[in-house]
Amino acid sequence: MTDRTRHFASDNEAGIHPRILAAIADANVGHAPSYGADAWTTALQDQFCDLFGPETRAYPVFNGTAANVLCAAGVIEPHQAVVCASTSHIHFDECGAIERFAGCRVLTLNVPHGKIEPESLLQVADGHGPPHQSQARVLSITQATELGTIYTPDEIRQLADAAHERDWLLHMDGARLANAAAALKLPLRAVTSDAGVDLLSFGGTKCGLLGGEVVLTMTEGLAPHMPYTRKQGLQLASKMRFLSAQFLALLADELWREMARHANSMARRLRDEVQDLAGLEIIHPQESNAVFVRLPAAALARLQSEWRMALWDAGACEVRWMASWDTTPGDVDDFVAAIRTALTAD
Amino acid sequence: MTDRTRHFASDNEAGIHPRILAAIADANVGHAPSYGADAWTTALQDQFCDLFGPETRAYPVFNGTAANVLCAAGVIEPHQAVVCASTSHIHFDECGAIERFAGCRVLTLNVPHGKIEPESLLQVADGHGPPHQSQARVLSITQATELGTIYTPDEIRQLADAAHERDWLLHMDGARLANAAAALKLPLRAVTSDAGVDLLSFGGTKCGLLGGEVVLTMTEGLAPHMPYTRKQGLQLASKMRFLSAQFLALLADELWREMARHANSMARRLRDEVQDLAGLEIIHPQESNAVFVRLPAAALARLQSEWRMALWDAGACEVRWMASWDTTPGDVDDFVAAIRTALTAD
Amino acid sequence: MTDRTRHFASDNEAGIHPRILAAIADANVGHAPSYGADAWTTALQDQFCDLFGPETRAYPVFNGTAANVLCAAGVIEPHQAVVCASTSHIHFDECGAIERFAGCRVLTLNVPHGKIEPESLLQVADGHGPPHQSQARVLSITQATELGTIYTPDEIRQLADAAHERDWLLHMDGARLANAAAALKLPLRAVTSDAGVDLLSFGGTKCGLLGGEVVLTMTEGLAPHMPYTRKQGLQLASKMRFLSAQFLALLADELWREMARHANSMARRLRDEVQDLAGLEIIHPQESNAVFVRLPAAALARLQSEWRMALWDAGACEVRWMASWDTTPGDVDDFVAAIRTALTAD
Amino acid sequence: MTDRTRHFASDNEAGIHPRILAAIADANVGHAPSYGADAWTTALQDQFCDLFGPETRAYPVFNGTAANVLCAAGVIEPHQAVVCASTSHIHFDECGAIERFAGCRVLTLNVPHGKIEPESLLQVADGHGPPHQSQARVLSITQATELGTIYTPDEIRQLADAAHERDWLLHMDGARLANAAAALKLPLRAVTSDAGVDLLSFGGTKCGLLGGEVVLTMTEGLAPHMPYTRKQGLQLASKMRFLSAQFLALLADELWREMARHANSMARRLRDEVQDLAGLEIIHPQESNAVFVRLPAAALARLQSEWRMALWDAGACEVRWMASWDTTPGDVDDFVAAIRTALTAD
Repeated sequence: MTDRTRHFASDNEAGIHPRILAAIADANVGHAPSYGADAWTTALQDQFCDLFGPETRAYPVFNGTAANVLCAAGVIEPHQAVVCASTSHIHFDECGAIERFAGCRVLTLNVPHGKIEPESLLQVADGHGPPHQSQARVLSITQATELGTIYTPDEIRQLADAAHERDWLLHMDGARLANAAAALKLPLRAVTSDAGVDLLSFGGTKCGLLGGEVVLTMTEGLAPHMPYTRKQGLQLASKMRFLSAQFLALLADELWREMARHANSMARRLRDEVQDLAGLEIIHPQESNAVFVRLPAAALARLQSEWRMALWDAGACEVRWMASWDTTPGDVDDFVAAIRTALTAD
Repeated sequence: MTDRTRHFASDNEAGIHPRILAAIADANVGHAPSYGADAWTTALQDQFCDLFGPETRAYPVFNGTAANVLCAAGVIEPHQAVVCASTSHIHFDECGAIERFAGCRVLTLNVPHGKIEPESLLQVADGHGPPHQSQARVLSITQATELGTIYTPDEIRQLADAAHERDWLLHMDGARLANAAAALKLPLRAVTSDAGVDLLSFGGTKCGLLGGEVVLTMTEGLAPHMPYTRKQGLQLASKMRFLSAQFLALLADELWREMARHANSMARRLRDEVQDLAGLEIIHPQESNAVFVRLPAAALARLQSEWRMALWDAGACEVRWMASWDTTPGDVDDFVAAIRTALTAD
Repeated sequence: MTDRTRHFASDNEAGIHPRILAAIADANVGHAPSYGADAWTTALQDQFCDLFGPETRAYPVFNGTAANVLCAAGVIEPHQAVVCASTSHIHFDECGAIERFAGCRVLTLNVPHGKIEPESLLQVADGHGPPHQSQARVLSITQATELGTIYTPDEIRQLADAAHERDWLLHMDGARLANAAAALKLPLRAVTSDAGVDLLSFGGTKCGLLGGEVVLTMTEGLAPHMPYTRKQGLQLASKMRFLSAQFLALLADELWREMARHANSMARRLRDEVQDLAGLEIIHPQESNAVFVRLPAAALARLQSEWRMALWDAGACEVRWMASWDTTPGDVDDFVAAIRTALTAD
Repeated sequence: MTDRTRHFASDNEAGIHPRILAAIADANVGHAPSYGADAWTTALQDQFCDLFGPETRAYPVFNGTAANVLCAAGVIEPHQAVVCASTSHIHFDECGAIERFAGCRVLTLNVPHGKIEPESLLQVADGHGPPHQSQARVLSITQATELGTIYTPDEIRQLADAAHERDWLLHMDGARLANAAAALKLPLRAVTSDAGVDLLSFGGTKCGLLGGEVVLTMTEGLAPHMPYTRKQGLQLASKMRFLSAQFLALLADELWREMARHANSMARRLRDEVQDLAGLEIIHPQESNAVFVRLPAAALARLQSEWRMALWDAGACEVRWMASWDTTPGDVDDFVAAIRTALTAD
């Protein structure tokens, strides 16, 4: 591998936004009560109430897997199941964390481009069946999806209605919620609480934080044991002020939107530059900060010799290219040049 | 509560040491491979091998509860048990996290001043009994203990031998290992790998980090599944460089020793000033950065109206006072004055 | 060991009462719907409603550990705890089954003769504390206790009130409920549903069954997921008619009372015969079918060379002698003769 | 539903074979050491060594779900996975019991007629991947399969080799192993230990027992903790002699083969009689005691009004008909007549 230090491998390869880092430094004064009794965490709770409604409860945690697992564990019984797309992080990228911690199952839906539709739910039973099978209880969607596509508010509302009709809850993995809201040019609540989402994994790590996510419950009494679940789930930060201060900075003046909009635009620039290249195929709509392509094997191999990237389907030569808050137009241009070279090198 | 911003409540109320914060900023350049494939994490692994021996494997995690739980989960079967002092964090302060994640039990020993002795082990069976009972497998000690006392290398070696004779492993909760090594004026390995410790929770959060601990296994092949256990345990940081960079700074020039020595000396200063006060009783030997005292109820109430502190046994009016890396002589003097006033106010 | 085939080791060493075995044979006709949809299980549900009240729900399971674990798992969250005597089966004899299956903790109370009193509960917190500790939620008592003592209806009611005041539930491990009710000369409901018990492990195995226990919930909606919990807990019998038929026979004409009264009287006979022997000490009140004694080590060794028995505390030479439904006066006389010989052999 | 008492719904609707019931009665003498220390269990262990090899270890348990879950739990880590056909009982009919108890995942393979082939394994990764995914560790096959098909010894050996090459273990769910061995006219070991099976769920309930299965490990040291796992898994029978005595009778003079051969022949008779009926389609090869058919919806509805049966795919009108050890030629003839009537009633 080259000593190149900028890639399109993942938005979690990028560092900390300067305003986030400054917020950490600003919070580094005196002593603060630990485990969330500090002023920053209180302020963050207030901010989330403002953003998503007064019944919102916010629980900062360390990473995205934890946020997803705690959201589910807070409302699910071990004999129940989470229903999600087969491409979802909660199913494919969490090493069975949810099964181990919550005891439950994950039931997957086959869906195009990572997006679940109300009819997709017909692939699983309604959650009121005989005791021989796990019973569906939580529908989990990802916004933006793992394939970079985006749910509109209407689409989310339809899923929420379909879930609630079945007595299910709707969870959103919002690791890239910022990218979705920025792309839709909508406030955060338009695609979350206003659209019927009950539980939200609010992402920070992929949006310029040092690290951190927030478990949000949108309804009163929804997950009354969450403070204990978070502790038992190894997610109660003692110096929580430094988690909360990051999120306060992320929310201030919608820094998240600025970062996400930029990342999205860099992905669009990349897609625009490569979509007509011979041999390269765009395999999912570019709607947020990801570009998924299929490449000839030889071209892919050449490209990988210098650029890190996520192989989505090695056998099919499908890769994911990801723009970050710190991706520059120059980065894109360098990469596009490398792609062109790789495609035409024979 | 007062608006006072400096207390003796806990060493996790203190902030980030400037050199640690600088290390985070320094690591904030370019893109880094995620999930531990970065250069900082590699360097940290090398450092720990230098410190504890070439077979050491290091797994940075988010917090102390996680470090303890993963250390145990990496080597224990669900029908087995962790043996520890009844005062230990793993037993008393982790909300059953180890039971939930590892499925195992915790067997407690009644010991004086938080320190286990080889004879203490006779309180539990040897771990090779009938299937009706959980079988002891891991002996967990805390260094420095939750009561501020310290094991000497000889004492640890004796416990290691007693554990290994039973085919148990020896785990050390080293949330305050720095304070112990500084007090003993010994290198870290003298009270860990050289003394027979198999698994170590290496503390950072209480020693000036923003947050972070390290799971260390000392023997080859000891916990071969740990990479998966860490992921499944919700502890695999995507931007791991920022965890590792903190520890690199902590280890550089033994910054940990400088901080710990200072905290210890502040606790000693506090003890020296209060030990002869009428009505106040020191209830555990002051050996690290903690001072445990018993106070008259009225005096305690007066003191608590202005100073946060950990009530160790509310009924007995026993409290813990904790010095931190950032505690100043002036802080101690202010506190001592307040204690004097509280004790004599009637 | 001798080839002797009758002992005082445990009431689960006895076989199947002839009327129970006959009931199995009688149920062995034609095909029956599996998994509890059979006529015997329906009839058993009706019988339990008659016995304990119309809101009772009955779930036959395979053994006593399972009954206890499912009772708790049906109502507890993983961050909560079961509170019980340190001598209880759920704590001491189930290999951590409850921790593994339910994820929760067991908090033990030190009590005399195995019986919890309302004041005993002050040994643990009330279940509404900070997230660092597991929160008490279920109080579990054993009737008759593991030490052979018995709770009166008033004592149970006081514990139920004390539990309910704390928002806890009251579980009864009734592995030997028959022995208690027979000794008290009371109907089953007087010491269960009428006394405030919420969940009952109704014992059969120790009372002449081939094997089987029943999980009983006494209140509507108490454990709505129990059908799933039982399945997930590996306790859903496919040929359930043979479990239910045994219980129908056990309840018919109070066969349980006949067996239990007999076993109790055999234990009383044994106690009466040995209580004045020099060197032997009765260490717990003989109230049901158990006699607990302390013996000189040499005498104990001699006795054990021919008779199996449960060593309760090997170091203290304390043993448990247990009478069964099939113990005969001749068995008692033989055993008493052996005890006399053992005590006087020097 | 009719008051008809004989159906083709499941082989677990049949009762206890007279020789099995007699064996229970014969074992009902005197007192026997509990929890497996009895003579019947010792004899059973010896019998299984004779049958499957001297390293075989036998652990009687209560039901088939338990046998499957304990086989896996005895050898798997929580971050690992069981690989099985999507039609397998362990995946589809156990309410997530394995996830809850073992913490692991189940990875499913799409296979025709319930039978896995070596190439099927290419559908999942080899179990040595990155920590983001659960790692395959146990391949589980069912013999006879849930769809009534049978693996030949060669087919099993190929799967064993493919599994072992990957460092996986091969588990066989043998709930209907008797039916398979009888159909193949082979000794039990030809399709189990001799063919490379490492762990076997040896079925009894579906073969004329009151209830009971046996966990068998075939290799020394394979699951060293199984005695504890069984206890913790709520499967340690106190009166184990009555489980073991049933299996001794089942094995004596190959009673299992007599029963299984008969059940298979009744299924064959049923298939022969219906396979040419207009409107009825046989959808899986009839190789053991099951016949799977597709029927017109109206015919199915008519038939179901009098006969219980397992709806395999309600939407597709696919049902399973199952012959038992006690199915008579007259039962088959009655059923065939009903099928003919149902198909021609319009």
